[in-house]
Order: sequence, then C-alpha cells, then structure tokens
Amino acid sequence: MPLTPSLDRLIHELQKLPGVGPKNAQRLAIFIFKKGADFSRALSSAVIEMSQNVKYCSSCAGICESDICDICSNSLRDHSKVCVVEKPTDVFHIEATGQYNGVYHVLNGLISPLEYLTIDKLNIKPLVARINSADSPVREIVFALPPKVEGDATMALIKKMIQRPLKISKLAQGIPTGCEIEHIDSMTLARALNNRN
Amino acid sequence: MPLTPSLDRLIHELQKLPGVGPKNAQRLAIFIFKKGADFSRALSSAVIEMSQNVKYCSSCAGICESDICDICSNSLRDHSKVCVVEKPTDVFHIEATGQYNGVYHVLNGLISPLEYLTIDKLNIKPLVARINSADSPVREIVFALPPKVEGDATMALIKKMIQRPLKISKLAQGIPTGCEIEHIDSMTLARALNNRN
Repeated sequence: MPLTPSLDRLIHELQKLPGVGPKNAQRLAIFIFKKGADFSRALSSAVIEMSQNVKYCSSCAGICESDICDICSNSLRDHSKVCVVEKPTDVFHIEATGQYNGVYHVLNGLISPLEYLTIDKLNIKPLVARINSADSPVREIVFALPPKVEGDATMALIKKMIQRPLKISKLAQGIPTGCEIEHIDSMTLARALNNRN
Repeated sequence: MPLTPSLDRLIHELQKLPGVGPKNAQRLAIFIFKKGADFSRALSSAVIEMSQNVKYCSSCAGICESDICDICSNSLRDHSKVCVVEKPTDVFHIEATGQYNGVYHVLNGLISPLEYLTIDKLNIKPLVARINSADSPVREIVFALPPKVEGDATMALIKKMIQRPLKISKLAQGIPTGCEIEHIDSMTLARALNNRN
C-alpha cells in the first residue's frame, strides 16, 4: 500500500535490511517520521559516518577505523599466535574474555559449496600467505570457528595448505557454563563425555 | 559489547527503533557496513528526504508532502462527510478499498488515561471546531476507530462535544471475510449474532 513518495522510498530502503518485511518497514518509516527531524538527522549522519569511517583491517580483515586495527598494530600482542575466526564480531567476543593475547585473522565466511562460498570468495589465501612466508613470525594457529560441518571443512582445508610446522589447536568443545544437563543435545553430550578431563 | 566508535554510535541510534534490541541493532549495523557505501548513502538520504518532505496535513492531520493533503484539497471529494481515524496510515488503508469519497480527520491516538493520552494530547479539539463552526460543510461523521475500549471512549467523548445535528455512524462489526467460524473469538461472534442481517 503506497503512502507518500518520500515515505515509500524510505520503506523501500528499509526493506533491504535483514528481517524487515513490508509491514515492518512501513511501521519503522512512520516511527522515524513521528520521532521528528532531530532523530532523522542523528540516524542518517550515524549511517554516513559509519560508512565513511569503518573499514576492514588490511592485515587481519577485522573491522576498525584505521588502515590497520588496534590489535594488529599493537607490538605488545603476541604476533606468533593467530586466532582464525569466521566474522569480524567474533574478534570482539573473544577480546571480551580477556584470555587471549595473540592476533587474529578473519575469514569473513566459511567454506560452503551450497552457498557458493569457495576458497576464492573468502579471506583464506592471505592467511596462508601470512603463515607460509619465509619471515613469518607465526608459530601457533588457534581455530575459533563454529563447531559445524562448514567450520570443520574450512579448518581442514587451511591445515592442508600450511607448509610449515606449527602448533595448531581449536576451541574446546563440551557443555557450556551454567546449563542443565537435560537441556544439552546428545551430540554435545557425547563429545563432552569422550573429551572428559 | 563495544565495536568501533562509529559502529557503536549507529547501533545506539538503531536501538531507538521499535522492536530493535541490542543484538539486533548490532546485526543491522554490521549488515549496513557490509552492504557498502552506496547503500549507506541511499538509506541516509532516504531518511533525510523523508524528514524534510513529509508533514502533517494542516486540515486533517494526515500525512502528506504539501501543506494540505491531496484528499483535503480535492474539490471532487465529498466535504460533507468526515471519516475519523486513529492513525495516518488508516487513511491509506480506507482509501485502498475505493469505497469512500469523503474526507478524513486523523486523531493521532485514542483517549487512554493509562497512557496519559488525554483530550489535549490528541487532535480532537480541531475536529470539534471543524464540525461546530457556523459555516461548516460537515453533515456526516463516520467513526473508523479500532473496536476496543479506547476507541469507544474516544467516540463517545467526541459525540458529546458535537453541537449540531449530524448523521453519525461507525464501521460495522462482525466476522471478517474469509475466516473460519471456529477461529473467531466469542466477543466478535456474539456481536455478529446480535447484529445479524
């Protein structure tokens, strides 16, 4: 149902956001209108500022607001350890634990033939080049990929491409903290039993 | 969990939208970043353009892109009939039926003491002035308010304030088109029985 031309244009753009259908886009557009000109200015300048400032780190492909991110450019971090993650936000999640002092490499996806995500579409070759170069400081790789088929396939592929002896590990799998045993799926429970310590 | 300053500012603004929590705002911000600069420009200019162009009609308080809306300024519409609705979008819904040729008045809310929505916060007094003025062309009022306590209370209040003899009606209540009898709530079914025709 068309409203006014400017509202319809905004609704059209809002519908491109994930999880926003036609009805929801209309509701959001009317809300933005009712909230007034100050909110519209704040929202649109936040979008533009983000788009101008945020970029991918030229070293790890994480997100940052300079050419190289604060972690990659920090000489106090242990550059011999590289933690391989799927998404830029995974870096912030791992940093929030305060348990890791190495650097990162963001793949920006996982190998998934069904979604046409092949090795060339992901940030895998720069990682392998980073590891295999003659003067590489890398001594250890920590895979922090999601525990599913795509994560395992991606890890196996990268392992195959590594041409230097390295310490390789992945995140421990088991039961998450604070959960009830009855709520854990049987696959997770089986792995936690086999890897008991 | 903070990301980069510009992303955090965008997430802060996105969280003000209805139904968007912290996790969802982060997901939307990352999506907008990944979608690229063209989308950011299109989205932010759509927000600004909408905020500059869309306004409330000075006559009916509906939304439009001029001082007076296309319906109020159309001399072919029947200005003796005024349809009273709660929200600006209700006008577009009723127009979509093609069954109404009068004009509208948007209250922008319903009387609701619990939400502090009193007569002064709504667009009720201009409606009453429009009806009661000596040279008013209004001969008929059609209430198209939601069939709930707040809608009925608002209608009763407006009726009390009308000082001229007018034809007054409200939308018929009954069972909606195409539904199964077993899925209708008992209140609706009771009304449909009592008003059978």
